Amino acid sequence: MDLSQAYATYLPWVEAEMRELLASPEPALARHYGMMQYHMGWLNADLQPADAPAGKRLRPMLCLLTCAAAGGDPQQAVPAAAGLELLHNFSLIHDDIEDYSPRRRHRPTVWTLFGIPQALNAGDAMFSLAHLAFLRSVERGVPASTLLKVLRTFDETCVALTEGQFLDMTFEDRLDVSPADYFRMISRKTGALLAAAPYIGALIANVTSEVMDACRQFGAALGLAFQLQDDLLGIWGDEDLTGKSAAGDILSKKKTLPVIYALEHDQVGPELRRLYGGPPFTPADLPYILKLFEVASVRSLVEMQVRQATVRAHQALAAAKPYAVPELHALLGELLDSLVGRQA
Amino acid sequence: MDLSQAYATYLPWVEAEMRELLASPEPALARHYGMMQYHMGWLNADLQPADAPAGKRLRPMLCLLTCAAAGGDPQQAVPAAAGLELLHNFSLIHDDIEDYSPRRRHRPTVWTLFGIPQALNAGDAMFSLAHLAFLRSVERGVPASTLLKVLRTFDETCVALTEGQFLDMTFEDRLDVSPADYFRMISRKTGALLAAAPYIGALIANVTSEVMDACRQFGAALGLAFQLQDDLLGIWGDEDLTGKSAAGDILSKKKTLPVIYALEHDQVGPELRRLYGGPPFTPADLPYILKLFEVASVRSLVEMQVRQATVRAHQALAAAKPYAVPELHALLGELLDSLVGRQA
Repeated sequence: MDLSQAYATYLPWVEAEMRELLASPEPALARHYGMMQYHMGWLNADLQPADAPAGKRLRPMLCLLTCAAAGGDPQQAVPAAAGLELLHNFSLIHDDIEDYSPRRRHRPTVWTLFGIPQALNAGDAMFSLAHLAFLRSVERGVPASTLLKVLRTFDETCVALTEGQFLDMTFEDRLDVSPADYFRMISRKTGALLAAAPYIGALIANVTSEVMDACRQFGAALGLAFQLQDDLLGIWGDEDLTGKSAAGDILSKKKTLPVIYALEHDQVGPELRRLYGGPPFTPADLPYILKLFEVASVRSLVEMQVRQATVRAHQALAAAKPYAVPELHALLGELLDSLVGRQA
Repeated sequence: MDLSQAYATYLPWVEAEMRELLASPEPALARHYGMMQYHMGWLNADLQPADAPAGKRLRPMLCLLTCAAAGGDPQQAVPAAAGLELLHNFSLIHDDIEDYSPRRRHRPTVWTLFGIPQALNAGDAMFSLAHLAFLRSVERGVPASTLLKVLRTFDETCVALTEGQFLDMTFEDRLDVSPADYFRMISRKTGALLAAAPYIGALIANVTSEVMDACRQFGAALGLAFQLQDDLLGIWGDEDLTGKSAAGDILSKKKTLPVIYALEHDQVGPELRRLYGGPPFTPADLPYILKLFEVASVRSLVEMQVRQATVRAHQALAAAKPYAVPELHALLGELLDSLVGRQA
């Protein structure tokens, strides 16, 4: 099995599980469930069937592949994988409201189409359904005691997500965010869920706690590499590939790691702090700001951090290797490398 | 033990449990947890200790008293009781955003003080912490299999809440909401959680499924009586006692049951549909609208429904009586009667 075969095998299981969970139980509620189905890429803005971009489904893949690589039955982890993906998507629906983001995955965001009150409530529904997804693990033979451990990990992750989002929002009004602040924030906002996904896969595979911890470390390091890559794409990514505005993170004055490094740079920092503390940016400001970033060499600084996090993820993976199904274990390494090299 | 002694015994357990759950784990997150503590009435707007109105804590009381009356150990149900109350309060934080409500319990709402993005995220945190509350039941000796049943009931209730809120919001633009539509909405928005509270108490007490079902019926009927009383107070309640604007539900054109009956009344319905379909109401419009409600006798119609639901709740309680601790069982009846007669 290669990585594309793994995707082709596992993801339809997860999609089927999620479609069952998000099916409307009665006509009067069709629009409520329709908003969630729209966000998932299954319906268009008129709530008619569509096949829109649906995201990477990275978290369920990490969960299922880790479960299988650790010698477990990936079918047993399908409800958990669906729950992880639903949690991720719930958080996107709410983040888009909190950031007033008009577009996601080349389409209008849920709140743009249906208004803030309904979008907020649809997000709450998806959060609830993510929990119900996990409870379906019982029917797949996951023992009750294992499932309670899985749920504890999951709910602690949910809390961490909100803590990360809180910190991220407090950064908006600050010009003194340190790299340490940034790493504290991002370990919760992105890292926690990407660490939980392989950890939960390992929990369901019922391996030793050493292997479980290695899987969690793998996910945490992968999560950091993934997020830093995202930060690079938010400034230097190709608009046609990412589906977001070019240099969108500059225009929104987002405090991503390249920006934080540039703001504290000896030479260009004072000028950038003046600009970031001033009126909103327009596209005409971009060439000058990008030039200042270049002087501070922040792109290569963050690219180096991506490489370091990738190395740490491979090391964690190696720690789990003696206990793993070799062929599937190698796919986790491939999955990691594919994320680090991504353009969108 | 009388009802006030039951409150004085049980509620401090629940408050202590919730305070542990909502304690900030580190200074950088103090404001995130502070918003939740403000909503609970423990902090003032400057996030300094306060003793503000905190709500009735009805759901935890129903859960603990039912557990004890059914012969269980109410201490075992404390984490679940805390989780039910946190869920209720999470839903209030989000409802206040969705309804743009400026005040609750005589104070500014969370979004008014901290902005929509942070309030939305604080609500998500409380939703997550409600789930973590339930998981603490293990430490009180609740068996894993029982806890999974409790969690299923809880998460199905969370979904029902969002369905009820969805339906309620769709009523805003409609003048043709029927009493059947209303009862379908309210059974989810209010009834589901008030039915779940005693049912979960009975689950933890580990009684027969017949007794559990009677407890659920009791909560559902109590929930209806409670909500209809709320509808009456929203129009005819005393501003000083309720902490909400007098006739606030008229000014906001909310489709509560008295309004729905009045809108479909032969004589005054056409005039009311014209008014409800027209420009926003001002306080000067209130006397005329209240006069139309009087002609339609909608107040006594809803008061009759409150009495009928109260009778059904007492009947459900009677079905559980042979299996209950008599003294505590009587308190559930008293609790019901105290709600129906309430002025706030």
